[in-house]
Amino acid sequence: MQTVSVSASKSYDVLIGKGVRTLLAEKLNALFPGAKAMIVSDSHVAPLHLDALEQMLDTFGIRHAQYVFPAGESSKAPQVLFDLLETLAAQRFSRKDVLVALGGGVTGDLSGLAAALYMRGMHLVQMPTTLLSMVDSSVGGKTAVNLKHGKNLAGVFNQPELVLCDPDYLETLPASDFADGMAEVLKYGVIADEALFEQCKTGNVENDLETIITRCVSIKRDVVAEDEFDTGKRALLNFGHTLAHAIEAQSDYAFSHGKAVAVGMARIAALAEENGFCTRPCHARIAAALENNGLPTDCAFSNRELFAHITADKKCAGGKITLILPDRIGSCYTETIAIDKLRELLT
Amino acid sequence: MQTVSVSASKSYDVLIGKGVRTLLAEKLNALFPGAKAMIVSDSHVAPLHLDALEQMLDTFGIRHAQYVFPAGESSKAPQVLFDLLETLAAQRFSRKDVLVALGGGVTGDLSGLAAALYMRGMHLVQMPTTLLSMVDSSVGGKTAVNLKHGKNLAGVFNQPELVLCDPDYLETLPASDFADGMAEVLKYGVIADEALFEQCKTGNVENDLETIITRCVSIKRDVVAEDEFDTGKRALLNFGHTLAHAIEAQSDYAFSHGKAVAVGMARIAALAEENGFCTRPCHARIAAALENNGLPTDCAFSNRELFAHITADKKCAGGKITLILPDRIGSCYTETIAIDKLRELLT
Repeated sequence: MQTVSVSASKSYDVLIGKGVRTLLAEKLNALFPGAKAMIVSDSHVAPLHLDALEQMLDTFGIRHAQYVFPAGESSKAPQVLFDLLETLAAQRFSRKDVLVALGGGVTGDLSGLAAALYMRGMHLVQMPTTLLSMVDSSVGGKTAVNLKHGKNLAGVFNQPELVLCDPDYLETLPASDFADGMAEVLKYGVIADEALFEQCKTGNVENDLETIITRCVSIKRDVVAEDEFDTGKRALLNFGHTLAHAIEAQSDYAFSHGKAVAVGMARIAALAEENGFCTRPCHARIAAALENNGLPTDCAFSNRELFAHITADKKCAGGKITLILPDRIGSCYTETIAIDKLRELLT
Repeated sequence: MQTVSVSASKSYDVLIGKGVRTLLAEKLNALFPGAKAMIVSDSHVAPLHLDALEQMLDTFGIRHAQYVFPAGESSKAPQVLFDLLETLAAQRFSRKDVLVALGGGVTGDLSGLAAALYMRGMHLVQMPTTLLSMVDSSVGGKTAVNLKHGKNLAGVFNQPELVLCDPDYLETLPASDFADGMAEVLKYGVIADEALFEQCKTGNVENDLETIITRCVSIKRDVVAEDEFDTGKRALLNFGHTLAHAIEAQSDYAFSHGKAVAVGMARIAALAEENGFCTRPCHARIAAALENNGLPTDCAFSNRELFAHITADKKCAGGKITLILPDRIGSCYTETIAIDKLRELLT
């Protein structure tokens, strides 16, 4: 088992390793003695993994309840958020109780926001069950729901108090969802760690998951420690994401986040290379690594089509936008340019 | 003009004095150059005061929009919150823009939460137009909407970046609403400042509003600086409020917050005195001051009826509840007791 300690507005541990899910009950007893647990999960994950957790909590005498919502991005919405909050209130949860998010990014983002809002803050434990949420959304405190006008437009920063990343959960993960996670893993390689990129470029990662996840979480931890509230360096984590959010929106969310990030990374790398923004070429290596991991490198939407969505991005303010550009594999930088300049580059 | 500087997770100034509302435009230009302003107000306040602000913003070349919602506690709800968020998104507000809350407690709480959530945080200025919000809700960062199951159950701590308290706004405030504010003013007297209590006990306060508001904001500032996130000393600000929230709920919010606080203070003072929790009697003085300020000292609901609501209060956790008890006028203390003990005391 590996432990990554995060120091932000809250300090907490991310435990990574096969079987760490079985530590939940003893950790809850240690961190929040006497607290009742609300386990939040979706209709895909709950049938697979919820029973085992509840039996463990029973064994340890921890009171618990469950909130299961329909799987899918459309549940990351105000209506589900407030239904969960009303459920917590109806069952008389207090702010000394704990919410346990068991699932992927939708579950984690929704639960993290609910825990932040409920009585202005109850305890929060993240138990990611997808590779994407293990390496990305479960750590760092970004929470949100989507608005009609865009993804993640309503949220807060709310750090969890414990994260349990158990690669055993990945055994039940569909291959396509696993690939989604590898898009973010490769992103960490491009922005900060060429060795990690090399380790993952063939797609043969099954035996190295604990070290790969640990490396990704460590990179994210370092970035978040420096810029918890996303005013500077944290933007690096969004490499490929400005285009990705546009692709997701343009496809009406038929495109998964991971695959959109894959296309976003490939396209921005190509654009950076063509325009002389890189010191070493990187598009071909990124594209090959994506393909080896079962990920797309392009999509049917033109950059012109995507541009309208980009101007609605959170990153876009005052007629300018901050792009994250690769200098080489292992190092990226941010560049703030005028929207008009971006339009020229893209079209 | 008086300035009270607040140091919390954000540092900001509260400007108090006749005419400070006319400083809005220059302050916005200084604090958030280039930012667009969304003025949030309700259907009572907007017709009285919104035009003047918009004209001033026009004069200074500050782009602005307005969001006006139906006046009343029932607007402090998830539906209105998310309608406001969708409006911000539809009008392409960015997180570098500013939300200006022009109104009373409902407007401030709703706007403060919306500003915290929109893109995980846009700028926020509070312009309270009621005495209650000047001395209480506009300072200190508590924001919330109500759930079906209770008041203020979904919210966050979000400090504003500027508060403009202009007593001229109180000229249009109905007498009953002014009295509501005086309930909170008297509360500050009881918990921390016997001289303030004496100054207000006759109800003749019209000529002293700037100093009275400044004194209340200073007391709140000191408490919030010590305990921003309400884990200890900040509970003192809730003197009278546990019963008040129960009275509001039991009356289905027909009882105003201020009048409920008045009854809550009178009842808890009586209970404290009867049970030997005070070193000096205070119930009679509190009741007289409330009456002189046009406030009730009792209501038709029995403590037994109110008890069920109290167990749903945020303050109630793990079978215990923290009460705020008066030691004497000018000094209160917190006492955590078992719920069963409270039932005995109340019934």
